[in-house]
Amino acid sequence: MLFFGGDYNPEQWPAEVWAEDVALMRQAGVNIATVGVFAWSDLEPEPGRYEFGWLDRVLDLLHDGGIRVALATPTASPPPWFTLAHPEALPVTADGVRLTHGSRDTYCVSAPAYRAAARDIAGRLAERYAHHPALAMWHVHNEYGTDCRCDVTAAAFRHWLQKKHGDLSVLNEAWTTSFWSQRYSDWEQITPPRATQYMPNPAHVLDFRRFLSDELLDGFIEQRDLLRAANPDVPVTTNFVQGGWVSVDHARWAAEVDVVAVDHYPDDAGPAAEEQTAFAADLARGWGGGSWLLMETGPNLIYTRGRMHAKEPGRLTRHSLGYVARGSGGAMYFQWRQPRGGAELFHSALVPHAGPDTPVFREAVALGRTLRNLSPEASEAPPPAASVAVTWDAPSWWALQGAGLPAEDIDYQAAVRQAHRALYRAKLQADFVFPGVSTDLGDYRMIVVPQLYLVSDEAAAAFRDYVAAGGTLVVTYLSGIAEPDTRIRLGGYPGAFREILGVRVVEWHPQAPGTVINLSDGPGLSAAPSSTADLVAGRWVERVETAGAETISLYGDGPLAGSPAITRNRYGDGSAWYLSTGLTDDSLQTLLHRVASLAGIQPVLPDLPSEVEAVRRGELLFLFNHGTAPATVGDVVLPPGGVRIRSADVEGAPVSRG
Amino acid sequence: MLFFGGDYNPEQWPAEVWAEDVALMRQAGVNIATVGVFAWSDLEPEPGRYEFGWLDRVLDLLHDGGIRVALATPTASPPPWFTLAHPEALPVTADGVRLTHGSRDTYCVSAPAYRAAARDIAGRLAERYAHHPALAMWHVHNEYGTDCRCDVTAAAFRHWLQKKHGDLSVLNEAWTTSFWSQRYSDWEQITPPRATQYMPNPAHVLDFRRFLSDELLDGFIEQRDLLRAANPDVPVTTNFVQGGWVSVDHARWAAEVDVVAVDHYPDDAGPAAEEQTAFAADLARGWGGGSWLLMETGPNLIYTRGRMHAKEPGRLTRHSLGYVARGSGGAMYFQWRQPRGGAELFHSALVPHAGPDTPVFREAVALGRTLRNLSPEASEAPPPAASVAVTWDAPSWWALQGAGLPAEDIDYQAAVRQAHRALYRAKLQADFVFPGVSTDLGDYRMIVVPQLYLVSDEAAAAFRDYVAAGGTLVVTYLSGIAEPDTRIRLGGYPGAFREILGVRVVEWHPQAPGTVINLSDGPGLSAAPSSTADLVAGRWVERVETAGAETISLYGDGPLAGSPAITRNRYGDGSAWYLSTGLTDDSLQTLLHRVASLAGIQPVLPDLPSEVEAVRRGELLFLFNHGTAPATVGDVVLPPGGVRIRSADVEGAPVSRG
Amino acid sequence: MLFFGGDYNPEQWPAEVWAEDVALMRQAGVNIATVGVFAWSDLEPEPGRYEFGWLDRVLDLLHDGGIRVALATPTASPPPWFTLAHPEALPVTADGVRLTHGSRDTYCVSAPAYRAAARDIAGRLAERYAHHPALAMWHVHNEYGTDCRCDVTAAAFRHWLQKKHGDLSVLNEAWTTSFWSQRYSDWEQITPPRATQYMPNPAHVLDFRRFLSDELLDGFIEQRDLLRAANPDVPVTTNFVQGGWVSVDHARWAAEVDVVAVDHYPDDAGPAAEEQTAFAADLARGWGGGSWLLMETGPNLIYTRGRMHAKEPGRLTRHSLGYVARGSGGAMYFQWRQPRGGAELFHSALVPHAGPDTPVFREAVALGRTLRNLSPEASEAPPPAASVAVTWDAPSWWALQGAGLPAEDIDYQAAVRQAHRALYRAKLQADFVFPGVSTDLGDYRMIVVPQLYLVSDEAAAAFRDYVAAGGTLVVTYLSGIAEPDTRIRLGGYPGAFREILGVRVVEWHPQAPGTVINLSDGPGLSAAPSSTADLVAGRWVERVETAGAETISLYGDGPLAGSPAITRNRYGDGSAWYLSTGLTDDSLQTLLHRVASLAGIQPVLPDLPSEVEAVRRGELLFLFNHGTAPATVGDVVLPPGGVRIRSADVEGAPVSRG
Repeated sequence: MLFFGGDYNPEQWPAEVWAEDVALMRQAGVNIATVGVFAWSDLEPEPGRYEFGWLDRVLDLLHDGGIRVALATPTASPPPWFTLAHPEALPVTADGVRLTHGSRDTYCVSAPAYRAAARDIAGRLAERYAHHPALAMWHVHNEYGTDCRCDVTAAAFRHWLQKKHGDLSVLNEAWTTSFWSQRYSDWEQITPPRATQYMPNPAHVLDFRRFLSDELLDGFIEQRDLLRAANPDVPVTTNFVQGGWVSVDHARWAAEVDVVAVDHYPDDAGPAAEEQTAFAADLARGWGGGSWLLMETGPNLIYTRGRMHAKEPGRLTRHSLGYVARGSGGAMYFQWRQPRGGAELFHSALVPHAGPDTPVFREAVALGRTLRNLSPEASEAPPPAASVAVTWDAPSWWALQGAGLPAEDIDYQAAVRQAHRALYRAKLQADFVFPGVSTDLGDYRMIVVPQLYLVSDEAAAAFRDYVAAGGTLVVTYLSGIAEPDTRIRLGGYPGAFREILGVRVVEWHPQAPGTVINLSDGPGLSAAPSSTADLVAGRWVERVETAGAETISLYGDGPLAGSPAITRNRYGDGSAWYLSTGLTDDSLQTLLHRVASLAGIQPVLPDLPSEVEAVRRGELLFLFNHGTAPATVGDVVLPPGGVRIRSADVEGAPVSRG
Repeated sequence: MLFFGGDYNPEQWPAEVWAEDVALMRQAGVNIATVGVFAWSDLEPEPGRYEFGWLDRVLDLLHDGGIRVALATPTASPPPWFTLAHPEALPVTADGVRLTHGSRDTYCVSAPAYRAAARDIAGRLAERYAHHPALAMWHVHNEYGTDCRCDVTAAAFRHWLQKKHGDLSVLNEAWTTSFWSQRYSDWEQITPPRATQYMPNPAHVLDFRRFLSDELLDGFIEQRDLLRAANPDVPVTTNFVQGGWVSVDHARWAAEVDVVAVDHYPDDAGPAAEEQTAFAADLARGWGGGSWLLMETGPNLIYTRGRMHAKEPGRLTRHSLGYVARGSGGAMYFQWRQPRGGAELFHSALVPHAGPDTPVFREAVALGRTLRNLSPEASEAPPPAASVAVTWDAPSWWALQGAGLPAEDIDYQAAVRQAHRALYRAKLQADFVFPGVSTDLGDYRMIVVPQLYLVSDEAAAAFRDYVAAGGTLVVTYLSGIAEPDTRIRLGGYPGAFREILGVRVVEWHPQAPGTVINLSDGPGLSAAPSSTADLVAGRWVERVETAGAETISLYGDGPLAGSPAITRNRYGDGSAWYLSTGLTDDSLQTLLHRVASLAGIQPVLPDLPSEVEAVRRGELLFLFNHGTAPATVGDVVLPPGGVRIRSADVEGAPVSRG
Repeated sequence: MLFFGGDYNPEQWPAEVWAEDVALMRQAGVNIATVGVFAWSDLEPEPGRYEFGWLDRVLDLLHDGGIRVALATPTASPPPWFTLAHPEALPVTADGVRLTHGSRDTYCVSAPAYRAAARDIAGRLAERYAHHPALAMWHVHNEYGTDCRCDVTAAAFRHWLQKKHGDLSVLNEAWTTSFWSQRYSDWEQITPPRATQYMPNPAHVLDFRRFLSDELLDGFIEQRDLLRAANPDVPVTTNFVQGGWVSVDHARWAAEVDVVAVDHYPDDAGPAAEEQTAFAADLARGWGGGSWLLMETGPNLIYTRGRMHAKEPGRLTRHSLGYVARGSGGAMYFQWRQPRGGAELFHSALVPHAGPDTPVFREAVALGRTLRNLSPEASEAPPPAASVAVTWDAPSWWALQGAGLPAEDIDYQAAVRQAHRALYRAKLQADFVFPGVSTDLGDYRMIVVPQLYLVSDEAAAAFRDYVAAGGTLVVTYLSGIAEPDTRIRLGGYPGAFREILGVRVVEWHPQAPGTVINLSDGPGLSAAPSSTADLVAGRWVERVETAGAETISLYGDGPLAGSPAITRNRYGDGSAWYLSTGLTDDSLQTLLHRVASLAGIQPVLPDLPSEVEAVRRGELLFLFNHGTAPATVGDVVLPPGGVRIRSADVEGAPVSRG
């Protein structure tokens, strides 16, 4: 069964609204509600005084209506009384400011008092509801990712460092503490990164981010184990949130959850929203090893450039089915009913301020029907299959967010998104692999490696074996530069990949945004399928010396006109391409399309119109027309904004635009 | 008598300058000097040691010169010794930083030590000078508006909340504290908004701003009562300052001052400076119930976009007479003499660094003559009369400055200014009304309601009665959305105004700056005087469903092309217009002009050239030519930059431009 | 001998790299290495435990390789153990945040514990190495300039103020503390500028910057005296760093160092890098009284607009010889070997991550040869001689960085750079003079005075005598405005210069960037060599009244069209020009060229192509072609990017571009 539903906050509404809620949920085909995410102050209004009565009634009402429940532990937002009882458990910024309640996430995950209070409330929920018939899953906490730099955190950080590095001399070496006289002579001297005079040590910053991810994970595991103990049959999850500020390495976390659940909010109201949907779904599926669940998205909202953009008619449907096509076990939203107050009072909902007599609720009703029809077949379908993979590595991302880099606008996530977007536009279905977490590179014909800054020796060896065995590897600049602790690999960039790529880079020339550099054909072109003189680069230029590789493209102009820009190296039975420069979107799409062809990879369907997205999930073929004109795919005519699902008697709601 | 003068700081100058000051004041016709605003450290150089001798001499000198005195209490800037004696009385930021002396306004108004020290110095001034023959009025403090988040403030805030909400459960409901687990179980848990993890609760933030306004008012009243007790015949005022950061609700404060005195500094050096002058004067007159006094403006300075713009010749005169035309009891400046040091050493003055042999002083001399000639008639004239009013509501402003709104560039003040500007350009004299303070909507034929986000049931009823009785109401988007405590009014926007407007809005589409959306005529156009296809909108689009209203204009393009944009509803004997979108300046001027015509409202004079501003104050007609070419109004030819005042034997200084 | 070398950090590398380092240094002709700058935590890994063995070995290795050593005291970065032992010695921001270790410069220079620790480690180095045969000079600390606002600093600041002002009433007068009630009644009330409500007192801020410069200088002197005592024959220096944030007045410091050593990093990758090189070198030579040493620059790096720009081939050579041509005793770099980790892991090096088989190392080898050949003659050459001087005054700079000024984008450094650049482009060799430090204005035919905001009476008298004796003075707007303590000089701007300039300015009109104002010829033009109608101004306009001066140029348009813009006053035997407006680069170059001609000053060489820079140092003539095409100077043909040094058998490495 595909889930359809979302966050439900009955505690914000008088009891008379609850019955209307259940009736409307039934009307829309909602079959799951996430309950209790921020209900701590209603469940435990004073320390040790619990009020479960209202929740009992809500769960019974939902159950009577045939709606299942993802029951949350409310630990993401301790009540105000907690602040007064345990000021030492509040988070502290790098400047030493102790934050207070009045928002959410006002806790330090390392604080014993917080951990005890979280265990207590989670334990009581487990005890009371673990066998409630409505219970479909446990939803621990909310969007883990909070940061703290207090002294308690410092102690936990040192403990983590001792486990990782063992000896202080090992840490001193890994962190290059001889730079700027930072050598530690005692563990006690190490604190989280805090306000200091000038640039911090990048290894220090990176290890702190790793620690924080692990520390938050400990907090999750503690609750998970309590919940599991109460009823081993109920799956436990937590909602992963994406965003550059997040201190959580989801690829590592995924092993600890029963279901990978993901919140996803596109941040662009144009066609990029669909590309982001595909990206987020493919990444989540990678974390989940094939399966995952969309836990939150905005029903009628794209927040972009400071504005809440209401979705065009049909877009809620297209996005929702898009997640499902790419493997989600359903479509869930934040939120069921738009609140009357609070910080997010304009965040969108299936039932908005104006009530159910609204476009968004009507579209939800139709979507519910579609999902219900699709459920049997989709639930049995295996995840989408792909011949191409892209690498993702949270520590490389974090490292490239630091100071002291060759350009302050290096953007790891943008680079990975661009690679994925190029494949998406080339109609090539893609998976993600996680070389920092597992050296298993799967069975792909082609792997794209954008800005994989940190690489361990083991991960590098896996790539070498992959190419030697016949794989096609496409590596971009800023890959292989450093060891996992940010120590530079000497002798020339791209360090770990020099041998398989057959190149040596001796100098970087970061370019300003908007720079245009035309490429021209290199002497090794015969190796490529066609001229590369149509490719345009810009954001980065390198002085590349080939050492075995063929030069496919030369810089046609710019600071290094005439020197190699794109190379290919035959290595073992495979080939390894190096992109020493940042191509434009169109050029990267063109190049990856050609390289994929050489590797024998075909698009999902041939001759797809550019506005049409096609996704295979098992026997199901999803066709999305994201354009504003009708589109034809074989014998199918898709109306503007329409969706068609083949090999099932199901059809998305084709909607004509505004 | 019209006042002419300004801030005078003899304590900054050696005594030999004082005589020159009085001589120059007499030369310029200055008849009032504001003395002592920041003189605390000169009046009480050490705790308990007072030095009034110099002030005695200054007041006597001024009195001998025929110059009256607005004597200030110096409580806006405690001396350095106060900081050391009472560190707990210094203000604390939301981040917990305790500010220190070295600037001005370094006090917490809730601190008992500060309040006691303020009462002491004010009381001593009252005792010594309450019957001084030079004393024209008391000027308490300076530009109230300082913020503090300390623990003493927290206690005062809780006390205020208890008075307002009575029971904690009422507050929990009003603040929607079930959102994000913020339910309070004890008053002690409530603090001022302080640094926290993420977005704050908007109701919390708004109540704190209301509290702060009231708390500062308490500080004012305490001094006022002391001064009144010493001599009930001397009026007491304080100078209101305008600006988005100000935590003071002047419409509420106005009831507590004897004279509404206002500081006004335009922030644009172009023609907007004149429009801002008109806006500020009309708003001040509204606060004052018809009369007010310009207490400060910059004689030769417009600070705009990081630069001090010296006024063109004649502009000092035009601005000054502009305030007077719109009801001010005079024209006063910051400041008399430009200082040699201190933080504002380049703030402008009637006597600048270069001395009296300067353009600004010469223009002041001529202006003094004009004001003297104008005085008898102007002093008796009633305030300007208007058939149109615009609403102003400080809490709506504050609420729309918060986080979590549908667009981060919502700007309440800009919306009100735009409405006023449109009327100004349409040559329609306007007043302000304050629906959050008084439900008395006066006798106007037409009321414009821009973005009145918060509306009480009582205020909404007053608008309903107004329209039912024949009034014309023009309401814009973002009006009527929430109750005074920010709880959303459900069922469709614009909540409180749905019934009288006959519309229901189900979706918002905030647009980016620069968006252009053309309107077209709707089926209800026959109700309107002429086609609206010349109107252009942009910044906001709504999905409007009519429920009784006629559709005057449709969206011609944009996300909701073809749906209603502007509507009119006949309600009782009146009519209520709804603008669901942000019109351009020109279009709003056009529309309001047409609606005013329908309501039978005429401009100040017919056929006024666009550069000419005309204001009637009683029998006086002020004509201002803000253009760079001569302008003709009936039989009057106004030179560029010239002013003419009719039906009095007075004439402003017509000045030809530089 | 010309020095060639740079910062060397053997502590970051295993001992086996040291031998390779020395071999590569010999290959490149490196003859000096700066050692130990940040080595404190390696020299004293725990309090009182010293490890000098590795440094002994490094110095011996270098000595054996014929390489001399600038041995640093490591006091710019105390080790982590210091933080834990002496938390009170860490710096505190204006917001009260106590910074911690984890970067560099984490100390308060006023803290007794820091000073004691610094003396201890410096003393031990002195004791051990003062007679080491490799020792060429002592390099104290690194780039002094750290700020602190703690209570210990406050006490030191008060002590400094007592010494400067003597009596508190003098300070109250100098700081105009009657403004905003800031009068101090006790020294204890004075603190460093700290977070406060609103704008600070500019005199307070300026005195604090002066204090900080002197306080840091005390720290330097303490170490210098220790080192001198150990061996009076070894010169002691510290590396001056340029930058707007620096609290150090280098012109005053210069008297206390044996060699003026300067770090210089251009911040523009275009031709401005060469102009900045000339500026920095001329300024450093001024500080050094004719001689100086380039202590640091980036071998292969220009950090500009957020990006590390790799230098084009030949640019390292051109910049390095440029410093030498303008008087440097050599060319030294940060750094020898690029680090594997730490905050600056991508800062450039002579031996980059890719190793010695790289363009930068190859260029270094050639440059080393050039410098060796040039050494005998260059070492004996007197510094470049100039007939023109430009004024530089750190306190004026600091004062113009403050708040409350007529325009927030006033930029003293930009104004001085522009004046120097105009002379540079006019091929006029320039020196710097320091009127705030010494009233000796030298023997120049012409002195340019850009924005000399603060002038003492003594300095003003020196300028008057200079003109009276026949000198040519060119003064720009914002000069002479205030006394050294920021008190305005009354009666009209430019205060101190009114008499010699024969003008009186009564009003300022700061203009926005991009404003274009054309000048036209004034009635005094006959005095000038040619029409000034080709000049274009913009950023500033003033209402100038002449009082004896001839009007050379009028404002042709803008707010003061028709009034004087540029004037000249004959005063005694000389003439004094006043520029009341900000000319464009081209116009300032044109004007200064004409004024110089009138003063009988000739360019370095006649008819130099615009891309060619020519510098005379004694008998040596350096010719630089900064252009991308060959250039001809007399019988010399310079290739693109090439350098030629005449009257010595030496030749720079002419390099063809990329």
